[in-house]
Amino acid sequence: MPWPQNIVLKEGNFALTKNFKVNISGNPNPRIFAGVTRFLRRLDGRTGLFFEQGFITKLNEFPNAELQINCTKSGKIGLYEDESYVVEITANQIKINATSDLGALHGLESLLQMLQNNSTSYYFPNAQIFDFPRFTWRGLMIDAARHFQPVDVIKRNLDGLAAMKMNVFHWHLVDDQGWRIEMKKHPKLTELASDGQYYTQQEIKDIVKYADERGILIVPEIDVPGHGSAILTAYPEIGSKFISLKTDFEKKNQGAAIVNYGIERNAGVFSPTLDPSNPKTYQLLSEFFDEVCPLFPGAYFHIGGDENEGKDWDENPKIQQFKKAHGLTTNHELQTYFTMQLVPMLKKHGKQLMGWEEIMTKNMSKDAIIHSWKGVNEGVLPGKSLVDAVKNGYKTVLSNGFYIDLMYPVASHYLTDPMPQNADLSAEEKARILGGEATMWTELASSTTLDSRIWPRTAAIAERLWSAEDIKHVANMRKRLENVSFRLEELGLTHIRNKEVILRNIANNQNTASLADFSNVCEPLKGYSRNKGGTEYQMYSPLTLFADACTPDATDALVFNNAVDAYLTNKTPENKAKVVVFFNKWISVNKDLKTLSANAPLVQSILPLAQKLNNASVALLLVLDNKSTLQKEELKKIVEQCNTKEHADVELAVYESLLKLI
Amino acid sequence: MPWPQNIVLKEGNFALTKNFKVNISGNPNPRIFAGVTRFLRRLDGRTGLFFEQGFITKLNEFPNAELQINCTKSGKIGLYEDESYVVEITANQIKINATSDLGALHGLESLLQMLQNNSTSYYFPNAQIFDFPRFTWRGLMIDAARHFQPVDVIKRNLDGLAAMKMNVFHWHLVDDQGWRIEMKKHPKLTELASDGQYYTQQEIKDIVKYADERGILIVPEIDVPGHGSAILTAYPEIGSKFISLKTDFEKKNQGAAIVNYGIERNAGVFSPTLDPSNPKTYQLLSEFFDEVCPLFPGAYFHIGGDENEGKDWDENPKIQQFKKAHGLTTNHELQTYFTMQLVPMLKKHGKQLMGWEEIMTKNMSKDAIIHSWKGVNEGVLPGKSLVDAVKNGYKTVLSNGFYIDLMYPVASHYLTDPMPQNADLSAEEKARILGGEATMWTELASSTTLDSRIWPRTAAIAERLWSAEDIKHVANMRKRLENVSFRLEELGLTHIRNKEVILRNIANNQNTASLADFSNVCEPLKGYSRNKGGTEYQMYSPLTLFADACTPDATDALVFNNAVDAYLTNKTPENKAKVVVFFNKWISVNKDLKTLSANAPLVQSILPLAQKLNNASVALLLVLDNKSTLQKEELKKIVEQCNTKEHADVELAVYESLLKLI
Repeated sequence: MPWPQNIVLKEGNFALTKNFKVNISGNPNPRIFAGVTRFLRRLDGRTGLFFEQGFITKLNEFPNAELQINCTKSGKIGLYEDESYVVEITANQIKINATSDLGALHGLESLLQMLQNNSTSYYFPNAQIFDFPRFTWRGLMIDAARHFQPVDVIKRNLDGLAAMKMNVFHWHLVDDQGWRIEMKKHPKLTELASDGQYYTQQEIKDIVKYADERGILIVPEIDVPGHGSAILTAYPEIGSKFISLKTDFEKKNQGAAIVNYGIERNAGVFSPTLDPSNPKTYQLLSEFFDEVCPLFPGAYFHIGGDENEGKDWDENPKIQQFKKAHGLTTNHELQTYFTMQLVPMLKKHGKQLMGWEEIMTKNMSKDAIIHSWKGVNEGVLPGKSLVDAVKNGYKTVLSNGFYIDLMYPVASHYLTDPMPQNADLSAEEKARILGGEATMWTELASSTTLDSRIWPRTAAIAERLWSAEDIKHVANMRKRLENVSFRLEELGLTHIRNKEVILRNIANNQNTASLADFSNVCEPLKGYSRNKGGTEYQMYSPLTLFADACTPDATDALVFNNAVDAYLTNKTPENKAKVVVFFNKWISVNKDLKTLSANAPLVQSILPLAQKLNNASVALLLVLDNKSTLQKEELKKIVEQCNTKEHADVELAVYESLLKLI
Repeated sequence: MPWPQNIVLKEGNFALTKNFKVNISGNPNPRIFAGVTRFLRRLDGRTGLFFEQGFITKLNEFPNAELQINCTKSGKIGLYEDESYVVEITANQIKINATSDLGALHGLESLLQMLQNNSTSYYFPNAQIFDFPRFTWRGLMIDAARHFQPVDVIKRNLDGLAAMKMNVFHWHLVDDQGWRIEMKKHPKLTELASDGQYYTQQEIKDIVKYADERGILIVPEIDVPGHGSAILTAYPEIGSKFISLKTDFEKKNQGAAIVNYGIERNAGVFSPTLDPSNPKTYQLLSEFFDEVCPLFPGAYFHIGGDENEGKDWDENPKIQQFKKAHGLTTNHELQTYFTMQLVPMLKKHGKQLMGWEEIMTKNMSKDAIIHSWKGVNEGVLPGKSLVDAVKNGYKTVLSNGFYIDLMYPVASHYLTDPMPQNADLSAEEKARILGGEATMWTELASSTTLDSRIWPRTAAIAERLWSAEDIKHVANMRKRLENVSFRLEELGLTHIRNKEVILRNIANNQNTASLADFSNVCEPLKGYSRNKGGTEYQMYSPLTLFADACTPDATDALVFNNAVDAYLTNKTPENKAKVVVFFNKWISVNKDLKTLSANAPLVQSILPLAQKLNNASVALLLVLDNKSTLQKEELKKIVEQCNTKEHADVELAVYESLLKLI
């Protein structure tokens, strides 16, 4: 995963032994050496074979090695690179041939996924793979502004991206809730607007290098002109908020009337917006870019541009006057004026501007890349801006449908294709669709829970962006995803291991079994329904709760649903038993959770939900045994109790399946 | 834990609510602000109360806050600081009073440990604590040379130290296996001798600051003149190895005959040693210190000095000549000559020299701190050098008995006291015993397993170094340690969570229950018996094996032992049942592991041991039922099979208890 473009399995195997060695030839970028060394260590960690080869540091070290890697040229980090590779496994040798080291690294990931075993040994099945990506932009965005994500969290996720053959990391570094970049010439930004949580320039360079070594382009984002609370906390003088000067003192001391902006602690869309009519705005932004751009060698810079509501612009007479003076009839046109000023600031550093879809208006430079994000929730046709963009001559990247922070099931992301099905697009227009990007906003994700919000679902998105269009069998994907998820652990990702950490805290160090069982049928509230209005959770509120231990695609829910379907199709005792086992489990979970709660206050909030599932289980057990004395309506009422979002920010993922049994 | 010097519990409680706030007054160091903010977040994470107070950044922000912290002065990082504090909890208010913020931070840790709950709410019991440390040096050493430990691993362990009121982090940065410090003037050291794994100077500064914020002094170590492989890989010209120049070419080209040193991949004591007769040795070391010392504001620098076997010195005529010329009769004296050259190099930077006990000879400066480490394994009386040191006028720190890498049970460390019991020491001599230090050597610890080797046992060492001498009730300590261990998780420490990660890999993503059960009666081989000869494991060998999932103090072993003792004291059916349950468990573990192994080659190596425990269980079950037909000798033979170190680098921790039942 992602499934290769071409794979042919053959008879026989390549047996792995402790003598296994790797040799590299050709003209690769030196990043291949560390890459192959990491491959060797991971393979050795899985198999415990104690390989003799330690570090690989030069070309042609072991000309007779079992694994031969050849690259024609040095890979460049960026779009449109040839990332193809060929893996050929025969009984005595494995060959990876690739145009560049970027393809070779992909080939090594495929090889790791090919590892098989019997009861005593490990082998690779003989096979031939020829593989290349469908889209050139296969990205993940992490929001490090809402909840700061330390260096190690970013690094392990870069490892995850590389394992999934993704090649773009979009780093959302500035938002209302914080400025996260050390600024040597403008230290106020971190002093006043970061709570001390930011990346030093050295750390950024280190992460850029780490990404480069894994074939990943970093696209930084500074979100302007909206989402401006943090910037305006440091530089209130470039804010748009109008204050009518009332007292004489104020009128004489213009400075004293400057708005006091503050770091935003809630989630949502806020009015603090940069003033597009103020020359100082452009002067400062230009200076920011002068300091930040050189940290990122990549050719793209994301300037945000989303969710500017224009409230402060409308209320500010000076800005209204500016609009008139420049013949800008709408705020949208004013924003375009603003954005166009940034184009040369970035071009100076060899960077192309990218922004969320709001930056697209008739006057926007065609060089800009349009990041399509709106959909049903925003009251527009999903991906509409993507089609508009390519028809208007823009390159574009799709994120609508890939909002992994919203806790939707993996299948919904997997079946979202950046290439629209029914749009009438020319080949040229289609070519402007660069790919897609999973977006991990962090209003509700701490560094403890982030990985479980990103993985494993992002692996399915990776497959959508890499593999052929017709690879879209959900059940098959799910099966492979389970194994991929397990293997991602070896990269240090914590999506599996941290669940128990949260449950232990909730259980107050008592036995977590019943909590774990219950978490396997509960899912965090989806969309924007957890943290309604954005004010229930401040950015420093605890994310150590039951909802934080739960994930989309609750594991038992799927198994239960299949059991119910099988039973309803064919009411054999075996099929019945597979349903009954769950009901009995949930009845005892309810009992155990009650016991647990005697010494665990954090369990209290889930008890009502466990009770409701218990009640439905008891009632439906009687139905299955033909012993129910309840009217259908009464039964429905009991099951309907399970259709609730009122408890502990989770919902029961088995409700639909329960309904079927009435 | 550590248990306070004085604690008085009173009637009543302080009830914790979401309105709980903190106020700081007095003249503390600003590190208190971030410290209190961390305290609030941890408390909120445990309780899920959604405290309204976010970040604490100034004095006297909430004069009416429930928690009032007052510090008289700003704390200095170093020895002999007043770290005392008073916590007073009453129904309406909590006060922490301390001389400095260092004491206040300790008080906050005590408060966190006081948290109680009933079924629905959290509270602190009314109490009064007056507390201070017994020893001023309460340290942990981490070896980042054998296995490099990334920044985040160091940071989370610093958090662990602070939680346990420890105040010294000894950072072993250079050894045969690598040089781990970025050197701007001597880049060869990391280019040739680090495998790319080292700390940048910026990262070191960042870690020093992180430690400072937690009240922790960092003592860096560059180990010389022995353990020199890494240094000599970069600078072979200052090595001691003699090569007789044979060919004419060699004789003419002295340089060509320089020994090719290489980074050491094995564990053990090796001969590469710096040449004490070569002026360039001192020139280079002086330059190294000039670059490294300013990174560390602390007043101490550890120069190692251990395990110099002198083999290369003995074989080098030039060095022998040098010895004679300087009237140095032994290698030990020669090493003292060497070490004495370093004293002014360090003094120049305001640093006092510290070294392992080998540096102590009659000519050694009394300013040096002697680090006592040898014991039974090295053929000397444990801690002998400590007594010698104080009698000779040296200050000293004890590590013998605190070698946590050797996998001995927590009780052995807990009962090791830096203050010798039977030595006849004056008050002045006693005062020279600064304290103790847990040493975590990493020949067999990766960043995945490191935490589980350090924690929770180091918490017991922390108690030994902080609490009163008579606090040494092992069973009581064990009980508290279990809770402390659980709470350390919230700091990001992975000692609990990573066990399942390793087991999942071994199980090849099958059910890990039987592996977990078995791991709870197995312990890694102790002392130096894993990795015999130091060559079985290279520094890049897999540490993803069963022994890496196991820890000292196997949890089930202790419970089983207590059950056996209770049964043998009083053979009631209830007591018998408590023993029987384990035998039945181990019989089914053996069966389940066999099933598991069909698709998990890494399980194979433990099957013989599981079989042996199964056989003993079957036989002893019959004994318990008075149905055994075996002779005592036959029975003993079966149980004796469990006394083995031949499988998977672990031993059965229940063997002694099994023996009792024969």
